[in-house]
Amino acid sequence: MSLINVGVIGYGYWGPNLVRNFIALSDTEVLAVSDCRIECLNQVLAHYPYISVTTKFEDLLQNSKIDAIVIATPASTHFSLALAALQAGKHVLVSKPLASSSHQAFQLIEEADRRNLVLMVDHTFIYSGAVCKIRELINNKKLGNIHYYDSVRINLGLFQPDVNVIWDLAVHDLAIINYVLPYQPVAVSLLGMSHTSSSHENIAYLTLLFDTNLIAHIHVNWLAPMKIRRTLICGDEKMIVYDDLETSSKVKIYDQGIILTNKTDNTDKMVVDYRRGDVFSPKLDLTEPLYLEIQHFIDCIKNNKMPITNAKTGLQVISILEGANQSIREEGKLIKLKESKMG
Amino acid sequence: MSLINVGVIGYGYWGPNLVRNFIALSDTEVLAVSDCRIECLNQVLAHYPYISVTTKFEDLLQNSKIDAIVIATPASTHFSLALAALQAGKHVLVSKPLASSSHQAFQLIEEADRRNLVLMVDHTFIYSGAVCKIRELINNKKLGNIHYYDSVRINLGLFQPDVNVIWDLAVHDLAIINYVLPYQPVAVSLLGMSHTSSSHENIAYLTLLFDTNLIAHIHVNWLAPMKIRRTLICGDEKMIVYDDLETSSKVKIYDQGIILTNKTDNTDKMVVDYRRGDVFSPKLDLTEPLYLEIQHFIDCIKNNKMPITNAKTGLQVISILEGANQSIREEGKLIKLKESKMG
Amino acid sequence: MSLINVGVIGYGYWGPNLVRNFIALSDTEVLAVSDCRIECLNQVLAHYPYISVTTKFEDLLQNSKIDAIVIATPASTHFSLALAALQAGKHVLVSKPLASSSHQAFQLIEEADRRNLVLMVDHTFIYSGAVCKIRELINNKKLGNIHYYDSVRINLGLFQPDVNVIWDLAVHDLAIINYVLPYQPVAVSLLGMSHTSSSHENIAYLTLLFDTNLIAHIHVNWLAPMKIRRTLICGDEKMIVYDDLETSSKVKIYDQGIILTNKTDNTDKMVVDYRRGDVFSPKLDLTEPLYLEIQHFIDCIKNNKMPITNAKTGLQVISILEGANQSIREEGKLIKLKESKMG
Amino acid sequence: MSLINVGVIGYGYWGPNLVRNFIALSDTEVLAVSDCRIECLNQVLAHYPYISVTTKFEDLLQNSKIDAIVIATPASTHFSLALAALQAGKHVLVSKPLASSSHQAFQLIEEADRRNLVLMVDHTFIYSGAVCKIRELINNKKLGNIHYYDSVRINLGLFQPDVNVIWDLAVHDLAIINYVLPYQPVAVSLLGMSHTSSSHENIAYLTLLFDTNLIAHIHVNWLAPMKIRRTLICGDEKMIVYDDLETSSKVKIYDQGIILTNKTDNTDKMVVDYRRGDVFSPKLDLTEPLYLEIQHFIDCIKNNKMPITNAKTGLQVISILEGANQSIREEGKLIKLKESKMG
Repeated sequence: MSLINVGVIGYGYWGPNLVRNFIALSDTEVLAVSDCRIECLNQVLAHYPYISVTTKFEDLLQNSKIDAIVIATPASTHFSLALAALQAGKHVLVSKPLASSSHQAFQLIEEADRRNLVLMVDHTFIYSGAVCKIRELINNKKLGNIHYYDSVRINLGLFQPDVNVIWDLAVHDLAIINYVLPYQPVAVSLLGMSHTSSSHENIAYLTLLFDTNLIAHIHVNWLAPMKIRRTLICGDEKMIVYDDLETSSKVKIYDQGIILTNKTDNTDKMVVDYRRGDVFSPKLDLTEPLYLEIQHFIDCIKNNKMPITNAKTGLQVISILEGANQSIREEGKLIKLKESKMG
Repeated sequence: MSLINVGVIGYGYWGPNLVRNFIALSDTEVLAVSDCRIECLNQVLAHYPYISVTTKFEDLLQNSKIDAIVIATPASTHFSLALAALQAGKHVLVSKPLASSSHQAFQLIEEADRRNLVLMVDHTFIYSGAVCKIRELINNKKLGNIHYYDSVRINLGLFQPDVNVIWDLAVHDLAIINYVLPYQPVAVSLLGMSHTSSSHENIAYLTLLFDTNLIAHIHVNWLAPMKIRRTLICGDEKMIVYDDLETSSKVKIYDQGIILTNKTDNTDKMVVDYRRGDVFSPKLDLTEPLYLEIQHFIDCIKNNKMPITNAKTGLQVISILEGANQSIREEGKLIKLKESKMG
Repeated sequence: MSLINVGVIGYGYWGPNLVRNFIALSDTEVLAVSDCRIECLNQVLAHYPYISVTTKFEDLLQNSKIDAIVIATPASTHFSLALAALQAGKHVLVSKPLASSSHQAFQLIEEADRRNLVLMVDHTFIYSGAVCKIRELINNKKLGNIHYYDSVRINLGLFQPDVNVIWDLAVHDLAIINYVLPYQPVAVSLLGMSHTSSSHENIAYLTLLFDTNLIAHIHVNWLAPMKIRRTLICGDEKMIVYDDLETSSKVKIYDQGIILTNKTDNTDKMVVDYRRGDVFSPKLDLTEPLYLEIQHFIDCIKNNKMPITNAKTGLQVISILEGANQSIREEGKLIKLKESKMG
Repeated sequence: MSLINVGVIGYGYWGPNLVRNFIALSDTEVLAVSDCRIECLNQVLAHYPYISVTTKFEDLLQNSKIDAIVIATPASTHFSLALAALQAGKHVLVSKPLASSSHQAFQLIEEADRRNLVLMVDHTFIYSGAVCKIRELINNKKLGNIHYYDSVRINLGLFQPDVNVIWDLAVHDLAIINYVLPYQPVAVSLLGMSHTSSSHENIAYLTLLFDTNLIAHIHVNWLAPMKIRRTLICGDEKMIVYDDLETSSKVKIYDQGIILTNKTDNTDKMVVDYRRGDVFSPKLDLTEPLYLEIQHFIDCIKNNKMPITNAKTGLQVISILEGANQSIREEGKLIKLKESKMG
């Protein structure tokens, strides 16, 4: 199995990026693309006339030459397509979120396990130089105790037809939190609002609590005047600013913080002093994250490995999203998160 | 009463700015400053040797030449000092927040009313060119229906000894919301965290709901790697970015948004399209807001006027802060706000 | 001639962008690509297996199905390739600069005229929404009298093997100046430096004088710590900042300037006052400039039109570059520019 | 002489900053301020009623209690006022530029030497944390060989009545170059333009050449849409961006550059490769530079020391300005700089 043959379902916003990167890999070939929209298939043909196209995804599943199915369709279809692909004996890379419920995610995990197939979620940011560097810094205790994680991920568009802004955008932050922080959240609160006739929130504020005095907060928004992709991660020794829109210096490490001392007047009161130091912006691997991700996907298939962004991490993210759904139905009430049974 | 004589209580961080601006006004004189810290009084003398100084604020209240008392002390002392000053027959300008509870605020309002004295809260931002322009834009319906108000007010320091970051920083946003939005919030939720041995939160996320589908959110933080002072105000016709750290172009108006149409295929589904247009940054009055504020204070004294930032607006802000206090005690539960009885 | 068949010579940095855009046009087809480097041809095949490739550009010239030749090779080869293509009866789109001397440019112009072929220079910026808007503003006298044009175009790389940074980067600014300003420069001065063993300057400062009191200055640099693409255009009524790295708001119009009055004390001295007003950022056409450019190229071929960036504008740019070459040889001496004989 | 008594001539734009800082020093006292404008003296009295004021600077020179004279008047008066002050036996701190010609500067140096008085130029930037850090980096060879120094110092205003923008703004850069670079310039070229009825240029481009392959370039401009204060200093090992408008991270050190190798194909051609690494922003001393400067002035008086920004450095700056004056009269011709006879 030296050459992996791939079929891609969905050629809308993200599909073209997937196809482009699979083509750039030397040991994969994109045999076929399916999409229910003829105009999208015409786009495939305009650029890659040698790729087969079809309006029926079933054609891909039935194609015995295809080893792996890549799913880049609306979120509500992920589960059924991924399940069908696994049942057809294909390895699967599915766009985020993995499924629409943790129950569905469990089913997919079981199906992949039973058939010994690779099931990977496309949490692209996990493969970026910036997020890898942040994980390394936190793992090496460079930040000290983590105090908070604060992310703002906003811009104008793209309103999704079948999920709210949390399931579309906050899922990125939840995957990053899952990957870089050494703790799992224990409770979630969500408040948000829809400004269309749809019931899907287009602005939302999600808060996560942990067993330590760590707080995480995510602001996601499809209706913002400007694009912001900025995360602050604060430890008691160092603080990180991760601005994904910066072309260079995406990650800045601030060697600053507070110094707490007791007052000398026996009043037991605390004095807060401030420490300001250097700012350091490490060199990052600038390879396109999606390229590294699909390289890893192919490697997992060839060598029967568990992907970094495996289905269990996808499930952990969905569990939080489900808690968030419940919270917003109960006016932002703090919802306890159960430990994933798969943990 | 052509010359108003002023006494200032508190000469720490904010007091020097107040004294400097009162001195710049032609129709006021700063007669005396009190502070319990000798080193602060020495600062007064170094710059203004002709101003009387004292460690006892009572000296200022008993000085019959003093017409108005300006209070720039820690928040927990505002109520008792303001009450004493009113009882001594002085007009009062008090730093934000007006008091530590709505009950206290009521008492101050009654005392000022009974004695026909001016009682004004130092909500400085209300007098800035940026906030005045934003109010004008909203009043003139330039934004259309307001969808959300989102503020980030973060930096490293200054930890306050007697209040949390909400009572210190979010109070600015609450005063601005009160001034520029045509609605009063009906519910509040607060989550936050302390990272010191103190019980006062140094990071907090406050959400306000209204009777319309407007949501307001405020992120305040004393432990941030960088300083941000940015507010997004989104209407269905235009969107504002107000960045107080910009030296020019503090207010930018984006003529953009979404266009909602129904699908033509009888499915009743909605299509979201995007509208992008010009960006406009209006010229702003750049006069120092504090200067305009104390000018207004003196004008209210001389002409027996009600200040813009009067004690009732101070009370409205405190009512929200009290709701927020209750919310955080109940794990971020959404707390209904009672209509102010004074409304 | 409804479908224009194109051959592309050179598939290095810029060639792939040309091919991609020609493919996106419905009425053109890319029949063949030539490059002397096998690895570049392999890149073509990887993405477009249906395009013919060859290491010999002569194959393209001899291919009678090819209507137009696009040249994207190093600058020193532009003249001979363009001449050969014209002589083979092909329409030509040649990368900037058009040729290595004005003498060569004349020859190309004559050859194209004689054969009634389209000869167009790839001055891509001329087709950008930003530059078009700036031209419109200046044409409509929105800026008043133009005082200066100041451009900084710097970054790390890409060192060209056969031209200096002026012939590589300043050529963009000279094309823009030629297009947006209502005047032609009358003199040029150039100072610069090489920091490699090559004689080609990698940093240079070019100044242009005009018959009016307008001054233009261009800083180009291949050895800069950060990327800057910013042009200031100042008139006595309004000023423009054009920052090509901004994703939105590339063009900002500042309604500000100075007000000159004579002193009232009969001393004949001038008082300078400052006027600050609104800042306005107009909506721009965001279509990829290269797409609009090649669309225009095809339109010129089909309808026998003179291109906007025709060979005479290419010649005007080269005349200035030649003056600049002379200036730097004479230690930055101001060199008078002759009026182009073709004017 | 434990307390140094100071008299300040000129209370326009810069004078108030000088007075404020002298007052903040414990071992100095501002005895008197002179200015020919009554409204300026009223400003002094409004803030510092205990300082004597006068419209005649001679009063200060004749006041035997005054040890040191600080001159903050228009540039054309610096020489005569400084000379008179020295002749009256006073130590002198004079605003930049030291004088209007090198001849005048020589006279001042001789007068101060003869009388053993401190004569210091107010080149404020030399005392900033940023410039000190840059000097330290260059002295410690952190940048390698210096390739270029490029400064942009532009904004709207303040047009000076008696000097051009070079003598007003470029003087800062010349002082910094003199302080941080290990070489003296050997030639200067200047081109610029006036856009008022005055003959003083309001926009200018100054280029300096050195004995090594180092080039320095300064763009100064009183008529710019935006304020920029940015200097690039490029060495073959590291590059610096110094942005004085940044509130934090004023100095950034980029560990990047080019790598030159010869082609392996025996053609003797050079291949340029690029090296990109970390970016580092060192902690800087944030003390107000003017405070450190006058502290140093007082220290020099008390301990009979030679100031860092002594009159000879002031003379070196003026020599370049004179060369620049000559260059612009000769259309930007490169003017050789004589070595200062005082060197």
